[in-house]
Amino acid sequence: MGPLARYVPILDWGRHYGGAALTNDLLAAVIVTIMLIPQSLAYAMLAGLPPDVGLYASIAPIIAYAIFGTSRSLAVGPVAVISLMTLAAASDVAPPGSPAFIEATLILAFLSGAILLLMGVLRLGFLANLLSHPVVSGFITASGIIIATSQLKSILGIEAHGETMPELLTSLASNLGEVNAPTLIIGVIATCFLFWVRRGLKPLLMMSGLKARPADLIAKTGPIAAVAVSILAVVLFDLEAQGVRVIGEIPQSLPPLTFPEFDADLWGRLAIPALLLSVIGFVESVSVGQILAAKKRQRIRPDQELIGLGAANLSASFTGGFPVTGGFARSVVNYDAGAETPAAGIFTAMGITIAALFLTPLLASLPTATLAATIIVAVLSLVDLRKPVDIFRYSRTDFAAMIATIGITLLAGVETGVIAGVSVSLALLVWRSSRPHAAIVGRVPGTEHFRNVKRHQVLTDPRVLTLRIDESLTYLNARWLEERVLKEVAEAPDIKDLILMCSAVNAIDASALESLEALNQRMRDAGVRLHLSEVKGPVMDRLRTSHFLHDLSGQVWLSQNAAFEALTHPHTAGAADTRQ
Amino acid sequence: MGPLARYVPILDWGRHYGGAALTNDLLAAVIVTIMLIPQSLAYAMLAGLPPDVGLYASIAPIIAYAIFGTSRSLAVGPVAVISLMTLAAASDVAPPGSPAFIEATLILAFLSGAILLLMGVLRLGFLANLLSHPVVSGFITASGIIIATSQLKSILGIEAHGETMPELLTSLASNLGEVNAPTLIIGVIATCFLFWVRRGLKPLLMMSGLKARPADLIAKTGPIAAVAVSILAVVLFDLEAQGVRVIGEIPQSLPPLTFPEFDADLWGRLAIPALLLSVIGFVESVSVGQILAAKKRQRIRPDQELIGLGAANLSASFTGGFPVTGGFARSVVNYDAGAETPAAGIFTAMGITIAALFLTPLLASLPTATLAATIIVAVLSLVDLRKPVDIFRYSRTDFAAMIATIGITLLAGVETGVIAGVSVSLALLVWRSSRPHAAIVGRVPGTEHFRNVKRHQVLTDPRVLTLRIDESLTYLNARWLEERVLKEVAEAPDIKDLILMCSAVNAIDASALESLEALNQRMRDAGVRLHLSEVKGPVMDRLRTSHFLHDLSGQVWLSQNAAFEALTHPHTAGAADTRQ
Repeated sequence: MGPLARYVPILDWGRHYGGAALTNDLLAAVIVTIMLIPQSLAYAMLAGLPPDVGLYASIAPIIAYAIFGTSRSLAVGPVAVISLMTLAAASDVAPPGSPAFIEATLILAFLSGAILLLMGVLRLGFLANLLSHPVVSGFITASGIIIATSQLKSILGIEAHGETMPELLTSLASNLGEVNAPTLIIGVIATCFLFWVRRGLKPLLMMSGLKARPADLIAKTGPIAAVAVSILAVVLFDLEAQGVRVIGEIPQSLPPLTFPEFDADLWGRLAIPALLLSVIGFVESVSVGQILAAKKRQRIRPDQELIGLGAANLSASFTGGFPVTGGFARSVVNYDAGAETPAAGIFTAMGITIAALFLTPLLASLPTATLAATIIVAVLSLVDLRKPVDIFRYSRTDFAAMIATIGITLLAGVETGVIAGVSVSLALLVWRSSRPHAAIVGRVPGTEHFRNVKRHQVLTDPRVLTLRIDESLTYLNARWLEERVLKEVAEAPDIKDLILMCSAVNAIDASALESLEALNQRMRDAGVRLHLSEVKGPVMDRLRTSHFLHDLSGQVWLSQNAAFEALTHPHTAGAADTRQ
Repeated sequence: MGPLARYVPILDWGRHYGGAALTNDLLAAVIVTIMLIPQSLAYAMLAGLPPDVGLYASIAPIIAYAIFGTSRSLAVGPVAVISLMTLAAASDVAPPGSPAFIEATLILAFLSGAILLLMGVLRLGFLANLLSHPVVSGFITASGIIIATSQLKSILGIEAHGETMPELLTSLASNLGEVNAPTLIIGVIATCFLFWVRRGLKPLLMMSGLKARPADLIAKTGPIAAVAVSILAVVLFDLEAQGVRVIGEIPQSLPPLTFPEFDADLWGRLAIPALLLSVIGFVESVSVGQILAAKKRQRIRPDQELIGLGAANLSASFTGGFPVTGGFARSVVNYDAGAETPAAGIFTAMGITIAALFLTPLLASLPTATLAATIIVAVLSLVDLRKPVDIFRYSRTDFAAMIATIGITLLAGVETGVIAGVSVSLALLVWRSSRPHAAIVGRVPGTEHFRNVKRHQVLTDPRVLTLRIDESLTYLNARWLEERVLKEVAEAPDIKDLILMCSAVNAIDASALESLEALNQRMRDAGVRLHLSEVKGPVMDRLRTSHFLHDLSGQVWLSQNAAFEALTHPHTAGAADTRQ
């Protein structure tokens, strides 16, 4: 792979493109297009935007990702959780639906694209590791609950606003008197139908002779059937006159050329939300990409994925879209429908363009209740109630991080939820790292092995204490090291020599080195010599670049046994290897 | 130690108090009081507060710490870096010196006290570990530079404001035309005198026959001499008429009873600064406390220190003070002067009270230039230029964290500097943790040892790949694990079995478990079985609580050699121990 092809993967797979791959990609594109039309409209609505914006966000971003992305199956576009985060961020600066709000979503897409691109070029993809699985899973579950609740307003035909569960529930409750019956009927029927399509249609089709894959793909077209039937119902029974809200006229147009206006203050306020959105989108997209790539023993390159998603979001901001990422449902459909290369995405983009140009007049009478039903059914599959139970059984600390994320997301909104989840995970990590395992060891009689004095019958000496440290020494435990060693020294008034056994120490950073230097000095003041034993080669190499070995009151011993022998029987022992 | 004495250490040491300790403590208190009077006035001025506030902040906090603190020698009161942070935080909400500003500093002391107390009760002292030594050292160096620069205005007799170096330098430069000559003369002489006292007086006194300790203590009284002489100069030559600014009348009073007013918005804005201030103060104080305790083989208890410092700050907020912590210079003087118990602090508080009641009229003509000189000389000793060189030689990543902290503190101010330092350290930690060491291993011929194929001549098998992982598996490297394993599988098309050798894996968290489950599933899709070998006991215990072992496509092997034998010679090998 040449250096250019590394950053523009289309140059790699594009050279050999044609034949069977082309046919498969075209077929997949048709199926994905049918599925994407209602989904794109619905997620635009969820983000508080006009429905056509959802279509625009499914055109240019797909093409940009096809050029720069590394997954062969990922389908990029509007996604539930990202739409919710977009709504939360943009409604902090302008009322949903207003021109300033639309402008804010363009800025979010632009900033998000720029952040992803920058992270890709600087190879900062590792920062996504800050989101642990329990935090991501908790966040997505909580977001799913918030999204489903927020869509109840469209099913009921009432107004309701809010970014947190308490706000949403109060708002829904206070408007419950204004429920619109025809809307409610459409919404409930659509929801039940879509649930049935998801659960019951595939087995039915298979019983009537279809194979699993085509049955699955037909079931995936359920939403478009719901859309068609409910449009018909609205037109035939003139339900609009009875108060059923419809999405209304959508311009027949190619995506407009847009450019987010620069406003330092506004960009500053949107920067953190854009960062959170980028990282969540990246994590979601990479997870999907990895699952699909592994099935064919292919790989995706996460740093290049950042560039692909960055290009997709930038292109969204230039073509009247809003923040996008690789979505789970659409990517799986794309994969199952047989997409072999990113060209399938390009064909899908063409399909959506045709829809935007010619099909939009048909959609004017689509009830928003139907779109709300597709959203509710889609996001409820994100809510995983078994996962918390599994995590609780496996690890209490991970469970704490997950519950904190779910609780804070539900009560304080998505941005606070993500930040809290990352903070809690980090705090737990720091907590665990700041009190590593260490043990006073003694010699197993008749051997050269040293074991924990609390667990084994071992030989010790009142003048020589050995502390084995079972962790790398970093700034997170440098203070612990000082406290632990000084505690041992304070509690053993007879000791003259303290040996730190470093067989499990893979690294010593500058903070830990400083703590060792301080310990050396303080123990010298207290009349105790500090020794090290079994220091690993790379650690020793690094220590040699400091003053520490020169100042050390004791010595560095190649083996713990040699140290113990020499210090407990000073007249018969061999030499230490401070100058090794 | 009883449970109450644990939280109120005075009950422990207080029971046996008297005799020689009393005499030594009284003597130390006299010396510390003399040193503290100019220092307290100066740090109040540095924080943008009236000078008497500095005296008040040196009375009640000392007593509160004496009751609740665990260090026998720590002297609590106003400290340079904390005063600078107080100035930065409070001037964000009100102009320095105004009543609202003074109120804000009381709120900062109250919030800081509450935060420290809460951290102590919840045993959250480990969170201070987030501040690595290079970050703290860089922060203190940069703060020292900012403080020294900010005091130039008083030496020059001009106005200058700003919280960052660019702001300060521009402000100083634009007012340079208004330099007041008599002020400049006093300032320069005082600065030179204090530098000489610090460097030259002690050797001189020792040459004239004094011992090192008394010589050192006399040298420490230099600032009070500078204060006395410059007051005399102002009075004798009527320098006030020539534009020399003096501190003016100070009320003769006991500390006033104050209570910070509650204002949710204001408290919200001051919460983060108060948190930063608390953590920096805690780290500084604990470092000093540990150094002094270790000299006598005593120990301090960091979680109880949080309570002691919390009580000190709360008492400061109730008695007209401002945020305080354990200071390096004053604590060392206290220790060197022979203080044996916290009672020395109580006597010092009495000394300062007497000063506040009876000596303040004498200080009205003290030039601010002299106080600025004491600040400059004190903080320039904080600037350590050799440290960055040492750290550069030892570790490039730690050096990067330090330089980032220094640069951002100088350019963007103290709060941004601390946050940036912590963030950079964490980012580097995440970066290192997210790419741990791992190696493909093979068997050393004729042994049961397995070594890195890149470093040793070892036996391997094209169908069986063994990856040894040299780190605990956590959420920071769960993604790396997936990518690394999938890469190995993608690059070795012939393999049928992959063994993860876990001899160095001390823990597997829920994220890593999920990655292992995903790997198991994906490799099954690709026709490769996943095995584990040499899993440690506690890790195995935890894995048994999950579904993973049940779903594993391969087996768990007690020894790597057994796994390799069985998988490469399937007909002769022993059984695995999945059900161990």
